[in-house]
Amino acid sequence: MDLKKILDSMDAAEVDSLLILKPENITYLAGYRPSSASVVIVTDEATLYTTKMDMEDASMNSKIPLGEFESTDKIKDHLKGRVGIEKSMPVSLYKKFKEGRELKITEIVESARIIKSPDEIENIGRAIDIAEKSLLDLEFQGTESEVAAQLEYNMKSNGSTKPAFDTIVASGERSSLPHATISTDKLGSPLVIDWGAVYNNYCSDLTRTLVKGEKEMEIFNIVLEAQQEAIKVIKPSIKASYVDKVARRVIEEYGYGDNFIHSTGHGLGLEVHENPTLSKKSEFKLEKGMVITVEPGIYIKGQFGVRIEDDVLVGNRAQVLSSIKKSIN
Amino acid sequence: MDLKKILDSMDAAEVDSLLILKPENITYLAGYRPSSASVVIVTDEATLYTTKMDMEDASMNSKIPLGEFESTDKIKDHLKGRVGIEKSMPVSLYKKFKEGRELKITEIVESARIIKSPDEIENIGRAIDIAEKSLLDLEFQGTESEVAAQLEYNMKSNGSTKPAFDTIVASGERSSLPHATISTDKLGSPLVIDWGAVYNNYCSDLTRTLVKGEKEMEIFNIVLEAQQEAIKVIKPSIKASYVDKVARRVIEEYGYGDNFIHSTGHGLGLEVHENPTLSKKSEFKLEKGMVITVEPGIYIKGQFGVRIEDDVLVGNRAQVLSSIKKSIN
Repeated sequence: MDLKKILDSMDAAEVDSLLILKPENITYLAGYRPSSASVVIVTDEATLYTTKMDMEDASMNSKIPLGEFESTDKIKDHLKGRVGIEKSMPVSLYKKFKEGRELKITEIVESARIIKSPDEIENIGRAIDIAEKSLLDLEFQGTESEVAAQLEYNMKSNGSTKPAFDTIVASGERSSLPHATISTDKLGSPLVIDWGAVYNNYCSDLTRTLVKGEKEMEIFNIVLEAQQEAIKVIKPSIKASYVDKVARRVIEEYGYGDNFIHSTGHGLGLEVHENPTLSKKSEFKLEKGMVITVEPGIYIKGQFGVRIEDDVLVGNRAQVLSSIKKSIN
Repeated sequence: MDLKKILDSMDAAEVDSLLILKPENITYLAGYRPSSASVVIVTDEATLYTTKMDMEDASMNSKIPLGEFESTDKIKDHLKGRVGIEKSMPVSLYKKFKEGRELKITEIVESARIIKSPDEIENIGRAIDIAEKSLLDLEFQGTESEVAAQLEYNMKSNGSTKPAFDTIVASGERSSLPHATISTDKLGSPLVIDWGAVYNNYCSDLTRTLVKGEKEMEIFNIVLEAQQEAIKVIKPSIKASYVDKVARRVIEEYGYGDNFIHSTGHGLGLEVHENPTLSKKSEFKLEKGMVITVEPGIYIKGQFGVRIEDDVLVGNRAQVLSSIKKSIN
């Protein structure tokens, strides 16, 4: 965390203090994720207020000074002047804090988080390595839930804190649901696996689809072409919506435009879904240091679905951080 | 979900519609948890608005009618009159929705959720069974992270969707941190395991501590006495704060009052921490059908910690839902 950058953004936004409640923003500022109700307040410096229960752990791990979080009322006393708040602040707290105080919604921490530091890229890279190694160690047999249990076991054994999201293992007709919940059905074909690890609070997010037979292979190749074309155009200063457009255009050309029912990707970091979004309506421009997913898919209701997802670092050109091959069988 | 009860509460709160954003509240009303941005609106009936991506899944699983979630602006058109909102509503959405509309913070869904139906109790019971079976199948050897990986694998294999929270496996000196993160250290003594499963969206939450040696056993027995005394007083119409007081008094009598650094318990359901809290300041009274945890602990900094946690259904007397024995070795 670059405190000077945060303080400069506070100046630009004309706020005298920042009140940070969102766990991922706290983690970003403190370099440590407390387990219980906590707050970071930034004035001239950043201070983490956490409960007695977390104090011992925090004193060993927080990278910023500590205070005890006793009550919302006592937290108020640490604020000064005009207060920058997060857009995610719960309305009940907003009403409590705004009494006698000027509050302004800012996205200072989210904006800082969008460009990753070398340390953050290293952490995401480790989360990707863990996820990839864990898939390669997997045997594709049994039921969807058995495969998911084994994959999550592999990730945890390989150093992941937890799955970055509910692992998706969807096969046969169920692969046509982009976010299918896991069944106890025997594996069918195709087999979509969407999985991610968490390393030092940073996430990875990958998808591979195992296909058999001609029709599945045909769709696989279209999705792969869409993904590769999209990755090719990634570079600083292009619009995020353009990456979506390129992927979508390939899929539309093959006549499957209506079957690509989600956006092309999203930012990746402390949250598995964060800015920038890569969608039709996205207003972001890509910048050096962003880490994004590129994950087009085609879903044919009642038949099957295919999705391919990799994690990409925006540099002078796109650097695909994931290295596991696209075809696994 | 009892729609009539929700509608009656809306009448009492003088709101004409309810705007529900919180995932667990949506799950409660729809009987199904969508994977993407979704909203439930209750007017005379409850409708789930979800994205195109979840529509196929929702059409198979939602227990209430569906609409497509296209944009916040279109959602506004479905609201009528005075609108009940949740206290967790993000302030940015609050500001968007309040234009030309009267909004009132209510806790109608949270209040309904606090008393569990027989179906909900059945789901929590299944989540407890899965967690218990998974611990019994475990070998207590290797490192903390290996034990955690194996326990989570067992839970997933036994039908849990995911861990109800980050599993805690904390041994030796690290057991003095109530919410210790998992290390790759070899298991020491004592060994605190705090774990839970999720079945059909409902959580379990249990803790067992494996102790060796006289001092650890002494502390174990104090914590167990505190827990048993607290469970004994649980019945409808007593104050939740009284349960906390009873547990705390036992621990204080033995001179460890300052080492019990968290509250005695919390409600359990779609969220692993929900109302009622069992703390000093809790204003809840216990009612029939509540499901709560009872989890006193003693934490001696630099030495070790012990916690024992069970899940309890409030009936005419307390019914302990968990059955795994307190001493495991």
